[in-house]
Amino acid sequence: MRPITEEKFELILDLLEDKKIDILMITDYENSRNVNLQYLSGHPTDATLLITSSGESILIPWDVALAAKHSEVDDIINPANFSYNLFLALKDLFENRWKKSSIMVGVHSMTYYGFIVKMKALIPGVKYFEEPIQIDNILEKLRATKTDFEIKKLIEAAQIGTRTIEDIQDFCLNAHDGTEKDLSFLVRKKMADYGADDVSFEPLVANSSRAHEIHQHPFASDQRFNLPGLALIDFGAKFEGYCSDITVPISFGKLSDEQIKMREVTIKAYEAAIETIDINVPLWKIHDRAEQILKKGGFSMPYSLGHGLGLSVHDSPLISRKPTDEYSKKYWKEETIQDGMVFTIEPGVMKQGLGGQRLENDVAILNGKVEVITKSKPLTF
Amino acid sequence: MRPITEEKFELILDLLEDKKIDILMITDYENSRNVNLQYLSGHPTDATLLITSSGESILIPWDVALAAKHSEVDDIINPANFSYNLFLALKDLFENRWKKSSIMVGVHSMTYYGFIVKMKALIPGVKYFEEPIQIDNILEKLRATKTDFEIKKLIEAAQIGTRTIEDIQDFCLNAHDGTEKDLSFLVRKKMADYGADDVSFEPLVANSSRAHEIHQHPFASDQRFNLPGLALIDFGAKFEGYCSDITVPISFGKLSDEQIKMREVTIKAYEAAIETIDINVPLWKIHDRAEQILKKGGFSMPYSLGHGLGLSVHDSPLISRKPTDEYSKKYWKEETIQDGMVFTIEPGVMKQGLGGQRLENDVAILNGKVEVITKSKPLTF
Repeated sequence: MRPITEEKFELILDLLEDKKIDILMITDYENSRNVNLQYLSGHPTDATLLITSSGESILIPWDVALAAKHSEVDDIINPANFSYNLFLALKDLFENRWKKSSIMVGVHSMTYYGFIVKMKALIPGVKYFEEPIQIDNILEKLRATKTDFEIKKLIEAAQIGTRTIEDIQDFCLNAHDGTEKDLSFLVRKKMADYGADDVSFEPLVANSSRAHEIHQHPFASDQRFNLPGLALIDFGAKFEGYCSDITVPISFGKLSDEQIKMREVTIKAYEAAIETIDINVPLWKIHDRAEQILKKGGFSMPYSLGHGLGLSVHDSPLISRKPTDEYSKKYWKEETIQDGMVFTIEPGVMKQGLGGQRLENDVAILNGKVEVITKSKPLTF
Repeated sequence: MRPITEEKFELILDLLEDKKIDILMITDYENSRNVNLQYLSGHPTDATLLITSSGESILIPWDVALAAKHSEVDDIINPANFSYNLFLALKDLFENRWKKSSIMVGVHSMTYYGFIVKMKALIPGVKYFEEPIQIDNILEKLRATKTDFEIKKLIEAAQIGTRTIEDIQDFCLNAHDGTEKDLSFLVRKKMADYGADDVSFEPLVANSSRAHEIHQHPFASDQRFNLPGLALIDFGAKFEGYCSDITVPISFGKLSDEQIKMREVTIKAYEAAIETIDINVPLWKIHDRAEQILKKGGFSMPYSLGHGLGLSVHDSPLISRKPTDEYSKKYWKEETIQDGMVFTIEPGVMKQGLGGQRLENDVAILNGKVEVITKSKPLTF
């Protein structure tokens, strides 16, 4: 089944018509993933999807059996008929099925450049719409609000994550020599026990000596987790393809004044952001509110306040500052909070030597109401 | 430290000179990973690397602290100076540091299309070398043979994987109700205990009802693993960035004649492939030898016989058939077995209802000798 609604699908066809695009082409391959493949076709992975301006959808999957099971398309093309060479299958489609001397194809930004270059060389009649960002924008906009079917899965993923917080608490209380890796395994195992298909991303586990890093590398180390100071764990569950994302800020031992300030300013920024959320509020204002509080406390936040959750753990919308460069500004449009949005709020601060704090919960806008669907809170030991 | 040797780095500069490319640009971001970033700079993830034709290397990392720790470059540019907008940082470099009215940039095929489009709009003076496949080809060729430093890590990753086979055997003997997911967790945990940083990819665990699929989705399910018939587990360890990759074909219960044939033809194809490997043997001949045996047995193999192992679990070289389309043929060059190559050999067959078998080991060419560095073999219960 494809998650997109008929109504939203029509909006894509309107864009194709408006921009004179004959075919929308969505690709998802190793090292070049794109969640729109599953969103528009139901097929989870490794395929090229073509949608014609009249709404016909054709899938060229790597695994035909998988496509037969999951996809909702008009036609599945077996790559075995083309010696498993995707480009030969595409050439056949463009030259024999559509037979137009010039075809305009729209692609998303994440399509890899080599794909386009190879298509150009093999199928010279095809032109490429030169503003892939417009394709991204409409797909992201459509994905930003969820159907009831999607929200049910997102809430399940959120609950699996929330249930795991208790296990994290137990670990901190009892596993005195426990390493970051031990905690990472525990969280992965518990979420699976609670019904997750998978983690939504590799859990980031950082003790106070590593929690100042923006992204931990490795995600979890062999170091003991409960070093004195400010630590955190950032993790999430995947349930039937849909993602949750939680960060628990944790402190061990007596904190310095500066550390107490880091902890408090994080909580303050989080609470202010949550209070700011309401139907029709511009997203950048929510980011701005949290960022101002962090700045006043003497800290900066080198990332965006939050991001949507869906088939991707970084889905639309992005809760971020207004863009600063002219190119991004050109395509930027103020977005506001709408019914059906599901997203994270995750302000944080970090300082080498002191550690880091980030408080992250998932928020859903349900029937005009703001609901925090995960229950992370700061833990102290 | 960067893994590439000085000698190989010079070959890249020769290509830049030969093709009149001023700057080689390597990008690695979420959903658009490229292992060449780490290979050429030492920096593991999330950055843009620029290499000038005179050999100067400049890194724009997302995480400057991480870059300070891992990278070996001439200059690190802090994105904080450009409001964390990578494109503004690039604009500054191209317009203020290099100041040429026209600059030719070479990119790899996996660079995402939106990146190029945005660069073109923001920095109009920059031109893009139109054959990214030539960039890929040289980088892949250089990565295809490993230094002693790299081989040491690859052997360690191989040994961690091999040690885990015993645990898989114990699981099959004792965990009668054990699910695919249980086995997946066990393998992940054991490899970490044996010193792995991480899995080299999500373990694929397929009982006889799923082993006919080309790629299992999900990677491991809640189904019992030891159903009668042909099953398999495909897994690997990552050690200090370097990958191993092993598939163990497993059978449970009494097999039908057809299943016995599947098992035997897989082993036969594997052994023939291993025998074929020798210094200077063309890679396609090794694939061909295995494929002919499978075909004679009445089976087809919809993938390539093997792939290199390195910083990526799908590294160079590819042990595959000759290309069939004109475009690929144009850039294809016969490659042969060389000292320092490390790669998988993994023939397999699959049939819905009967299951699947694949036997995969990792092979290293060390001082002219063929060494099988993992020890997978068919298991029967």
